[in-house]
Amino acid sequence: MNISYAKLQEIVKRRKNILCVGLDTDPSKMPAFLPKTREGILKFNFRIIEATKDLAPAYKINTAFCEQLGAEGYEILKRTISALPHDVFLILDAKRGDIGNTSKAYAKSLFDELNADAVTISPYMGSDSVKPFLEYDDKFVFLLALTSNKGSEDFQRLEANGKPIFRHVMDKSAEWAPHTGLGYVVGATHPEELAELRKAYPERVFLIPGVGAQGGQPEEVMSANAGTLSLINVSRGIIFASGNEDFDKIARENAVKYAEEMTF
Amino acid sequence: MNISYAKLQEIVKRRKNILCVGLDTDPSKMPAFLPKTREGILKFNFRIIEATKDLAPAYKINTAFCEQLGAEGYEILKRTISALPHDVFLILDAKRGDIGNTSKAYAKSLFDELNADAVTISPYMGSDSVKPFLEYDDKFVFLLALTSNKGSEDFQRLEANGKPIFRHVMDKSAEWAPHTGLGYVVGATHPEELAELRKAYPERVFLIPGVGAQGGQPEEVMSANAGTLSLINVSRGIIFASGNEDFDKIARENAVKYAEEMTF
Repeated sequence: MNISYAKLQEIVKRRKNILCVGLDTDPSKMPAFLPKTREGILKFNFRIIEATKDLAPAYKINTAFCEQLGAEGYEILKRTISALPHDVFLILDAKRGDIGNTSKAYAKSLFDELNADAVTISPYMGSDSVKPFLEYDDKFVFLLALTSNKGSEDFQRLEANGKPIFRHVMDKSAEWAPHTGLGYVVGATHPEELAELRKAYPERVFLIPGVGAQGGQPEEVMSANAGTLSLINVSRGIIFASGNEDFDKIARENAVKYAEEMTF
Repeated sequence: MNISYAKLQEIVKRRKNILCVGLDTDPSKMPAFLPKTREGILKFNFRIIEATKDLAPAYKINTAFCEQLGAEGYEILKRTISALPHDVFLILDAKRGDIGNTSKAYAKSLFDELNADAVTISPYMGSDSVKPFLEYDDKFVFLLALTSNKGSEDFQRLEANGKPIFRHVMDKSAEWAPHTGLGYVVGATHPEELAELRKAYPERVFLIPGVGAQGGQPEEVMSANAGTLSLINVSRGIIFASGNEDFDKIARENAVKYAEEMTF
């Protein structure tokens, strides 16, 4: 039994929604009254977590926003992770991927040092770049398939042997691990393909970014999901919904609204 | 004028070789007499740098091996970078790539905080994931094209419209930045394609990993290069060539040998 997958199933069942709160704390987007210091960023993260922690089954932290702050950023990342309730599903959105011995080191960093339940991984370097993450059979991997950004058109949609590269990524990687260990990132900004892909892979967990600031619509995603297990990520649409002193209250109001649109 | 590119040209001209020393310090591979602690790792890195710093024009540090050590790893990374001579070309091999605002944060981390001259970037997410790195017009980007590992066969070699994905990556991205700002990672383990790609893109700098432990041969790479500007990376074949007290002496002997095979 994969512990992280079981944890995800359990918390989604209990919270009855599939909202994932994206803690992408870009200091330049925080309410202006908060100082752009370690203390200010931690205060922001702690208040967002406090305001949403009884509601969202999952949190996604993008490592980039901590890394840009150097050693202090690492401490912020650690302390933010410690502030999350023990039973929520934690995704570290790191989009790593390297040759075998290097991917092994990244897996150690994300799973052992930072205690993530799941990570996002880039497929470009192929099987041996992903396998070190899959060897953690108590953890979960989301492989990038069709991402939410405009640049997804450049290479992911190229067709080889009659199907797009993102389908090659999914079809091939499905052989590497069972659905309890491997799922896919598919952007909410591609509702038609999302519906097709959910039909093709009903058992695989999808991580669906792109709702809110990036333009994806919750009702379209829910309709495409058709009852399959996904996590729909909202970052800026929740955490930066207000620039005022009451930012956490507004974040909660938005999270409640999103969670209601994402019942499971 | 791109400062990093000019720096690379100048140091290669001065050192008369294109060896890049890969400082991939996996603690489990260090000589057994060194403790696997911050002090032990730093001692190892400092001695390798001291033994090779008058010889190699470039160093490549893979961020994974520091990240797996948590906050201490960040300090090791910073102190290792500080120990490098000011005039060598520093590549941080991070293989990042994310949506625009996130890639911007990674660029800040690697270029501003860590002061890299160049970084490696994954192309899977397309143009808007790479452009934040290219906006630093004094820095250099190596985009993954055809990587040295076995998994490169899985997706990079798929053919769309009569050419492989790695050629799509190169042909498309060549429109995003001039040769002074953007080059490619092409593995030494694919000598035939390397020769073809060097002919197709004579002006672009290639970062060529895979010599030594991964099986690539310096003479094959030099012949494929045909006088174009590349950096040939050797990691394990230099830094882990000896497990004894004289590891730095042996590292230097190997670096001298490689540098002689890689004259420019």
